[in-house]
Amino acid sequence: MPASDKFDYLRVVLVDARNPLNIGAAARAMSNFGFQHLRVVNPYDVAFEGARSAVDAGAVMAKAEKYATVAQAVADCSLVVGTTAIGHRDLQHSLQRLEAGASIIRGHLASGPCALLFGSEKFGLSNQDMSHCHWLMHIAMHEEHVSMNLGQAVAVCLYELTRDPGSLAAPEKGSPASSAEVGRITETLLTALRASGYPKLNTSDSFEGAVRRLVHRLQLQSGDAEFLLGMLRQMVWKMKNSGQAEG
Amino acid sequence: MPASDKFDYLRVVLVDARNPLNIGAAARAMSNFGFQHLRVVNPYDVAFEGARSAVDAGAVMAKAEKYATVAQAVADCSLVVGTTAIGHRDLQHSLQRLEAGASIIRGHLASGPCALLFGSEKFGLSNQDMSHCHWLMHIAMHEEHVSMNLGQAVAVCLYELTRDPGSLAAPEKGSPASSAEVGRITETLLTALRASGYPKLNTSDSFEGAVRRLVHRLQLQSGDAEFLLGMLRQMVWKMKNSGQAEG
Repeated sequence: MPASDKFDYLRVVLVDARNPLNIGAAARAMSNFGFQHLRVVNPYDVAFEGARSAVDAGAVMAKAEKYATVAQAVADCSLVVGTTAIGHRDLQHSLQRLEAGASIIRGHLASGPCALLFGSEKFGLSNQDMSHCHWLMHIAMHEEHVSMNLGQAVAVCLYELTRDPGSLAAPEKGSPASSAEVGRITETLLTALRASGYPKLNTSDSFEGAVRRLVHRLQLQSGDAEFLLGMLRQMVWKMKNSGQAEG
Repeated sequence: MPASDKFDYLRVVLVDARNPLNIGAAARAMSNFGFQHLRVVNPYDVAFEGARSAVDAGAVMAKAEKYATVAQAVADCSLVVGTTAIGHRDLQHSLQRLEAGASIIRGHLASGPCALLFGSEKFGLSNQDMSHCHWLMHIAMHEEHVSMNLGQAVAVCLYELTRDPGSLAAPEKGSPASSAEVGRITETLLTALRASGYPKLNTSDSFEGAVRRLVHRLQLQSGDAEFLLGMLRQMVWKMKNSGQAEG
């Protein structure tokens, strides 16, 4: 398919953006490199409306969609990639350098939607945001522990995605499960664990995140996701309808 | 020589820059990618001093040098490359796409200083400015006749200069689960399905094979396999120790 159709599958997702200039700069970079779909999660409203009403706001900014949560913003995407400045925290995900990660994303765009997440200017993506991601990607820097300007990071990532349109990876067999399917499995698995009295559930806030990342790592195909979901639902039913059922 | 020494030969030259935010953004991108020498030709003085005094101005901005003319700013350079949005004028120079031009520049930096010129946000480089250049370079855009934000253009060019074409996809974290681990998960999952009264278990002999293939397709990491196994065992325990427990 033509590159422009393929690129129609990319969603650039800005999480907790606070600066209208940066939102506008991201939209401008998208327009420059031929990407259409900007999604903004939980923006500072003054910033979002400011970016929309800027004199040089283009079509991408006018069509930008606002979401309350990352889960909703990536629900239709079968690949979710988070961007991060490395070194500032223990990462639970596998991490790709942009050069390699962009190649994987280009391959995926041949078959289905992909979300590329950028965190706030100040704090980047939170661990909670990252729990929705299949893997993380970073732009190699001269020094670690530094962050890039948001508009520049978006521009560099989109440049890399478009720089070598000839090298397409073969599409994967079958279609990958959407984030909504992956989310349903995670939720049902958590429900099953609660119903089972799984001991670690209440020991830490991060347990749900660990389960969410685990399910993402499975990289399920869509049919397999339905298969697993049916199994889990049956177990939940059984646990809840037995004599000592809880919750 | 080490990359850092080589990059010490690059001079980023901003001509007629008018916006302090853009000057600061160019300096920040240089710092991110490991370049030191920023030269500013005939800037709007308020912009230059504003960028210098910005709270987040770094070492690159503090060391930035001001020149009255392009000729003076590039006097020590043995290669001078201008950047341009193509299409808006008849170019007298040869024009390289960034991917190819950066490769030439990298080669040159092994032996001597190179200036990379960026024009004003509004008008780009003038024909007079370009007359100092050996050749021109452009970033391929979705549509011609559009210009990039100055800070983004600098970031993309410096990224291309420093990108690592040999960078390979990072291996997944951890080691793959052994066949024995995969087998234990399959057996425990089947036990859980039996305990749950999953309806398809008895409809065909091939169901167990389908479950086994599904678990293999998950391509579990070893740690994840243990994690899943613990969850499944807890569910089996719950189902078997409830009032209506079976088998």
